[in-house]
Formats: sequence, structure tokens, C-alpha cells
Amino acid sequence: MKPWEDKVRRVTPYTPGEQPKIKKIIKLNTNENPYPPSPTATKKLRELDTDMLRRYPDPNVSDLVGAIADFYKLDKSQVFVGVGSDDVLAMIFLTFFSESGKPVFFPDITYTFYDVWANLFKIPFERKVLNDNFEICAEDYYETNGGVIFPNPNAPTGTAVPLSFIEDVLEHNKDVIVVIDEAYVDFGAESALSLIDKYDNLLVVQTFSKSRSTAGLRIGYAMGNQELIAALNAVKHSYNSYTMNYPSIVLGVETINDRAYFEETTAKVIATRENTKKELEALGYTFGDSKTNFIFAAHEEFDAKEIFAFLREKAIIVRHFNAPRISNYLRISIGTDEEMAALVVALKEFEQQKRS
Amino acid sequence: MKPWEDKVRRVTPYTPGEQPKIKKIIKLNTNENPYPPSPTATKKLRELDTDMLRRYPDPNVSDLVGAIADFYKLDKSQVFVGVGSDDVLAMIFLTFFSESGKPVFFPDITYTFYDVWANLFKIPFERKVLNDNFEICAEDYYETNGGVIFPNPNAPTGTAVPLSFIEDVLEHNKDVIVVIDEAYVDFGAESALSLIDKYDNLLVVQTFSKSRSTAGLRIGYAMGNQELIAALNAVKHSYNSYTMNYPSIVLGVETINDRAYFEETTAKVIATRENTKKELEALGYTFGDSKTNFIFAAHEEFDAKEIFAFLREKAIIVRHFNAPRISNYLRISIGTDEEMAALVVALKEFEQQKRS
Repeated sequence: MKPWEDKVRRVTPYTPGEQPKIKKIIKLNTNENPYPPSPTATKKLRELDTDMLRRYPDPNVSDLVGAIADFYKLDKSQVFVGVGSDDVLAMIFLTFFSESGKPVFFPDITYTFYDVWANLFKIPFERKVLNDNFEICAEDYYETNGGVIFPNPNAPTGTAVPLSFIEDVLEHNKDVIVVIDEAYVDFGAESALSLIDKYDNLLVVQTFSKSRSTAGLRIGYAMGNQELIAALNAVKHSYNSYTMNYPSIVLGVETINDRAYFEETTAKVIATRENTKKELEALGYTFGDSKTNFIFAAHEEFDAKEIFAFLREKAIIVRHFNAPRISNYLRISIGTDEEMAALVVALKEFEQQKRS
Repeated sequence: MKPWEDKVRRVTPYTPGEQPKIKKIIKLNTNENPYPPSPTATKKLRELDTDMLRRYPDPNVSDLVGAIADFYKLDKSQVFVGVGSDDVLAMIFLTFFSESGKPVFFPDITYTFYDVWANLFKIPFERKVLNDNFEICAEDYYETNGGVIFPNPNAPTGTAVPLSFIEDVLEHNKDVIVVIDEAYVDFGAESALSLIDKYDNLLVVQTFSKSRSTAGLRIGYAMGNQELIAALNAVKHSYNSYTMNYPSIVLGVETINDRAYFEETTAKVIATRENTKKELEALGYTFGDSKTNFIFAAHEEFDAKEIFAFLREKAIIVRHFNAPRISNYLRISIGTDEEMAALVVALKEFEQQKRS
């Protein structure tokens, strides 16, 4: 043992989905958008004032905060921007969940980064068990806690709760911060954004990585009352004044301003998802009513790990979580119609092979 | 008081130098490089594969880590990359200084973010007082502590210590992590990088923001033995898997690979600094022997705040810290020869006005 080893903070990190370097694969494992970024954004990249790269970017990210505020008809003081929603959520855990010493509540089957953040910042937590239909139960969140967070739609289950459910949770949690993680909301769920004026303890978190086709830019944001946003900004400016780089800020503004492209590509993903649901159903897969850009599916007869391995052989990568209750499921991102057709062909081949 | 207010972590953030939006100013306040980024890097920006922006970037940042490792003839396992050296340093505070409960030591006059990070993560700290010549005293770092960090060259003083000084500190601190913050090292100080094989508790932190003309890309890095780097990566992957965005990774690789441009622009900044020293000396300013891209200067007769305000009127922005012991100093970044000539003209005007 080294003399300094007891000085090191020991953590078990989150495991992100693979980012294989081969290009000729069908990549349905990290819920990226199959459509390219907004053409106005990529055009802007070509015209970027490169001399600005030698300067520090705007630490307050005013242009991007302003563009997001305009999109949602909010005031700039109600928007916080970070390096993807992971950065925003990490800062939320540190800012709002680390002080009380009480456990933060989140579902047992959910985004697996929540307990990683809780452990990183030594925040106690309780996982609230989803029911057998993989639904969140509002009553589980009535007890005293140090904060509440869940995704809507939930991930990896893909299903959504209505606003009345979120209001129920908020009514029972007026003394803590309640965070709705809406990474996938644009694909068919109802946003809790309409509740931020009524509930000053509500934060809604969204991202550019899914519906806005720019996971590679790393942009996420939180929306809520200005006191919460100011507290988040104080922590951000105590961590790193300049989290958002110049290309991200400039392209982020163009991306959010291109509403038509966003609506068009989102509608296409939704149409492909609904079509894929029918195909998977016909093949004997079961899944909840996904409102996201992925389907979380299990087959009635076949083992998920076997399907996963078979698809991988065919250069189709989906995501498998080796975790309690969900180890027989695959999370399949929605690609283009062509990619999903290739997936269906491969799944049919798998079935044939199993039955022969 | 709101019912949730006791749940909020309260911090006093770092105050970054201004980033005024007006372009027609001489900006000598945040130690940016006056020369544009490497032309090969900006060319690459125009050719960027924009479809990649819809994908998550490589969470391990292998290409950039590899390019930095190649530049310094290290193994990839000895390099950690973050969103500017502020991100790297924040993670270092969390990873290596937050466990022991003992105070981390750093100088009283130094980078003002150190105590902000310590407060953010509730790490006790002790500021070790520089001597009257604004020099760090090695003996101050002999006592039991929870970690040691100082910049070399120090900021905002601008002066450097030799490697023997750093070895002295390391010899007295084998049971903690010692961090040398080398943000400015390329402008004339000796890097401690040559010591990382001898001292497995040493981390050397550098940045692209100064000598590599790309503050707008947000790239910083730490170099040290692979166990330290692995611990940092575990914390990074417990915070945000994808901190580095796609444009930064691609342009970062090109930037570090262009060694000739880096050497040429660094030499120009050093030459301008040495010339500016002569000019300032002739005007009655005193300063240490800066090995950075700034000069930390005080005038024998005139008040720093008055000079600051006068320069501002002339659209020349320098940095003034309203802090004990240094409130009569100005930190003046090294710009182009033309910018420094304009500064000298303005300082002469100031003197004339004062004497008339």
C-alpha cells in the first residue's frame, strides 16, 4: 500500500454504452438520434469565427441560455445550462441533495447514474421498487426524504406518467427539491415545465443529446424558479467558470432555434418507433408503451443475452443491463426505418436459428 | 423562508475575469494568447464530420489523451483530460483532498479558485503566507496536511520556483498528493513532469487555454502515475461520462500535434513580455521576474485602482484583485507587440495627467 492511498476517494463509476470506433455498424445502444444535427447548425460550424477560440467563452453562456429561454417562453433567470444533462444532474445532486443528510428517493429501475452521483457525493439514497408492470408508485415518495428524482418517461422502461402524477408527488414533497429528468420527453410524454410557476421546488431537466441530434455537443439544461437556478449557478461557478465551450455555445443556439427541423425529425423517430412496436409485437416481444426513442423489450421465450450476442454478430448493437429484474430485457434505440428493418430481419433470423 | 431552503448547498463562487462582448478593446485581463489557434486546427474545424455530432463522443477521449501522451512521451495511462484545467483541478480536489479531513495547503496569494473548490467540497485548508517578495517558502509545506497544491509559475505573482524546490516539497510530503498547477509553465518555467516517475504522488496539471491559444475549446490535463490517473478517471466517470465534446476532441488533437506553431507563438509572447518588462520598469513599475504570459505590476507612486479605471476608459482591460496584500497590483496579460505599445502609451498618458 502506498503511503498516500488513504487520501484517495474511491468510487464505482457509471458504465456508459459502448462507442465503437467502427463506422459500419447499426448502433442502437445509446439512444442517439439517427438524423444529423440541424443543417443551420452545421452550416454555422463552417462559418465559426475561429479567432474566438483563443478566448475564454462567456462564463454565463448568455446566448444559449437566452435561446433556450425563448424556445420555452421563460425568463433567462429560469434556465441553467451544463455539459449534457449528466453535468446538470451531477450539479443538482451536489447543490440540492447533499445538505440534509436524508435519503434522496428514486426508482429501483431507472437511470443507473443516480446512485453513482449519490455515492460520489456521499448522499444517502433509497431505491423505490417499481411495481410488476415497471410503473412508479406515487405513494412511495410520500415519506420524509432529502429530495426526489425520476425520469419521465422513465429509462430504461420507456413509459411515462401523466402530469397529475407529478403534481401528486410535488404536493407531498414541498420541503425538498423534486427533479423530473425529461431526457426523452420530446418523443411523446407531457413535460412538467408547465408546473414550475406553481411549484418553486420543481426542476425540469432536458438535453440536446436525444431529440436535438447533438449528443456530440454536450448540452443539457435545467428549468425552474430563479432561486433554484441561481443556487445551481453558484455551484457551477464554484466548480468551473467555463464549462461550455465556444463551438457548443454557437451551435447550441442554432440548434434550438431550428424548431422546424426538431419537430420534423422528432415526428419521424416517433413514427418509426410505433412501426417498430408492431414488428416486435408480431415477433413475440413484450414491452411497455414507450414514449421515448427506444423500446425496452423482452422476448417471451428467448434469453436477452443470447439475442444481444446474436445481434452483435450481425453488427447491430443494442444495450443489455445485467441488473436485477431487467436482465432479460434489451434496450433498443430507434434508428432510421432502414436500420429498424435490418434489426427485424436479424431478429427473425435469430428465431429461425433457435427453432431449427 | 421557503420550506426547502435548508436543502440548498450555499457557496461563494469564483469570480472570473470579464468577457466583454465588445470586440474593439485591448483585452489584457484573462491571460489569453494574442495569437489565433493553430491553423491546422482551424482547418480541421471546417472539415469536421458533422454527422458525428449526433453521437456521444468517446467517453475515454482516447485520441486526445493519446496525442497529449505522445507530445510528452508518456503512456496514455499517465494522462487525464478535462474541461479546462479548472475541471481537472476541481476533480483533483474531490478525488485526492476530500478524504483525509486534514487541511490542504496552498499559498495565500495564488489562484483564487483553490479556496472556492475547498469550500465547495467542504475540505479544510490553510493558506501559507508568501514572504514579502511574494515567494513560496518550502518549509511552510513540511507540516502534516491533507494535500499540497501551488501553481508554478505562481499566479498572479508570475514568478517560478526551480525543480529543486518542488523536490524539497515532495520529499516532505510522501503521504499526500502534491499538485503542481502549471497553467503558465510553457512561458519559461521548468516543468515538474520529469519528476512523475520518481514521485508517484505527484500530479502535474497543464492547460490549452494559455500557451495553446484555445481557451475557447476548454481543454486541460493532468499527468502523473497511472494509479492517480485511474482514480481521477473513476471520479470523472462518476460525475459525467462525456465531459469532452466532439469538436474539442478533434481540434484538441490537431492543436497539440502542431508543435512548431506552439513553439513559435510561445517564443513571441515571451519576447513581448521581456520587452514590456523594460517599458514598465522605465515607467516606474515594479514586478517579479514573470515566467508567465502576464506581468503582475505595481507603481511606486500611483494607485492600482486609478490606473485600472484610466485604462478602462481607454478600452484597455487589465485585471485588478481587490484582495489583501495585492490590491495595489495590476495583472497585465501579454498581448501582441502592438497591444503592449498601446498599453505603454496609455500608461504614459496616465502619468502625464497625474503630474499635470
